[in-house]
Amino acid sequence: MIAIDWGTTSLRAFRLDAEGRVLEQRRSAQGILTAAGRFAEVLRETIAGWDDALVVMAGMIGSRQGWFEMPYVDCPAGIDEIAAVMRRLPAAALAGRELWIVPGLRTRDGAGVYDVMRGEETQLCGVLAQTETTRASVCLPGTHSKRATLVEGRVDGFATAMTGELFALLCEHSLLGRLMSDGGHDAEAFALGVAHASRKGDLLHHLFAARTHGLFDVLRPDQLRPFLSGLLIGHELNDLPADAGIVHLVAAPALLVAYEAALAQRGHAVRAHSELASARGCHALARRAGLV
Amino acid sequence: MIAIDWGTTSLRAFRLDAEGRVLEQRRSAQGILTAAGRFAEVLRETIAGWDDALVVMAGMIGSRQGWFEMPYVDCPAGIDEIAAVMRRLPAAALAGRELWIVPGLRTRDGAGVYDVMRGEETQLCGVLAQTETTRASVCLPGTHSKRATLVEGRVDGFATAMTGELFALLCEHSLLGRLMSDGGHDAEAFALGVAHASRKGDLLHHLFAARTHGLFDVLRPDQLRPFLSGLLIGHELNDLPADAGIVHLVAAPALLVAYEAALAQRGHAVRAHSELASARGCHALARRAGLV
Repeated sequence: MIAIDWGTTSLRAFRLDAEGRVLEQRRSAQGILTAAGRFAEVLRETIAGWDDALVVMAGMIGSRQGWFEMPYVDCPAGIDEIAAVMRRLPAAALAGRELWIVPGLRTRDGAGVYDVMRGEETQLCGVLAQTETTRASVCLPGTHSKRATLVEGRVDGFATAMTGELFALLCEHSLLGRLMSDGGHDAEAFALGVAHASRKGDLLHHLFAARTHGLFDVLRPDQLRPFLSGLLIGHELNDLPADAGIVHLVAAPALLVAYEAALAQRGHAVRAHSELASARGCHALARRAGLV
Repeated sequence: MIAIDWGTTSLRAFRLDAEGRVLEQRRSAQGILTAAGRFAEVLRETIAGWDDALVVMAGMIGSRQGWFEMPYVDCPAGIDEIAAVMRRLPAAALAGRELWIVPGLRTRDGAGVYDVMRGEETQLCGVLAQTETTRASVCLPGTHSKRATLVEGRVDGFATAMTGELFALLCEHSLLGRLMSDGGHDAEAFALGVAHASRKGDLLHHLFAARTHGLFDVLRPDQLRPFLSGLLIGHELNDLPADAGIVHLVAAPALLVAYEAALAQRGHAVRAHSELASARGCHALARRAGLV
């Protein structure tokens, strides 16, 4: 089968064997924003040469701006509940293929405020398919990071943090960005940022430390970016309870290294997963839906 | 005398009578970024026709990127300590005028992290010159908001929050900004944002409520901007202790209305001051330095 993670700004395709192992993968910048109006054509080109009939898609492709609007499944929800709501597109959508879309997930906090995800639920299913803990946490870092709680094989709830988007905005458009110079990863500056986030005070105030640390030579200009990265990731992790249990981390290599360091600094036990968890999750959903 | 508040992106000039009352004011977009290299020329044009010899300048004009780099005076500091460090520019700097620059202020929190201001200290001096409380707080909203504590006639310490800059970044460049439509002030959406900021959880997570409140029709697109404004101002005020005492608020009319509402919602007693507090502070400094 083929698993597709089709987001706002990119598309990733995975060809899987019968056990859900990734045989090949492809990536394209044709996210739903640029592919709008020609989803079938973009998909056909992306998976050309892969002759598997079954294609399972997740992500913003199932949003109102996508190919077919899918509902949100309410938490708590696991592989069973999500697989039960998957929908097949009309056979005419793409000749010779059987296209399915995965629904999004929705949760509500104690005060009734909603949170949503589209796409990350396949990563959570990938983690669920591989673990048997009664209680665990999952961090899915990104533009909009998701932090989920798993209880008895289901996603109990989750929360979004706009960590990645805010980091990019601050680096590209803020006063702080103008003070930065290029440099590689700097573990010391990053750790200082993570520690700073634990201090009393709001993020709006903590951000200004990047300014004064530069002004008074606590940090060099090339250390301001890793400091800010640590500060924001640290703030995201402030919402992770100290008794969160094992924290499953699903991320691309660079983010994996950063979040592993930050979680370790905060005393959490981490189990790292590659981004292939998403493909594994699609496979688990397809199997539960009786498609493979 | 003439009081000048010369910041990064704008310049404000006030002509004062012998008691420090504002007779006339002028404004220009020639902040130190655009005026760099021709400060004397810009100043001469700005105050042309005002024949007062004494000119007291504050703000980024005293920074490394300004006309003459001034030190920071360490807190606690009041009108006495700041006036004692004012410097006169060489007489040749601007023929026929006597130019003085006000130093910045610096503070250090319990963990030794610095915070700084340049320009806002004249607003604080303006408040100090008008009040006799033994203990009070001051909010100076803006791109980089300052919250200061006054103790026994001096500035005891202060903290910067990047509230205004983050609001502008999010409106102009983020996903949230793309969801907003234009609309006027909306007291209800603003109050919802202020209340949301009091909830458990980090700002990085709270920001995403602007997304889901839009998605599930809790707020209309034209209400997202006032909600975000309330959310950010609410987060800034989270660092203001409940027993802060009277909160002096110095701001231009639009921000004054917003912060007054947010402070009242949090149960603080507010005393509002116009932005002319800055000119009043320059006059108080000049008097203490024996210049008027």
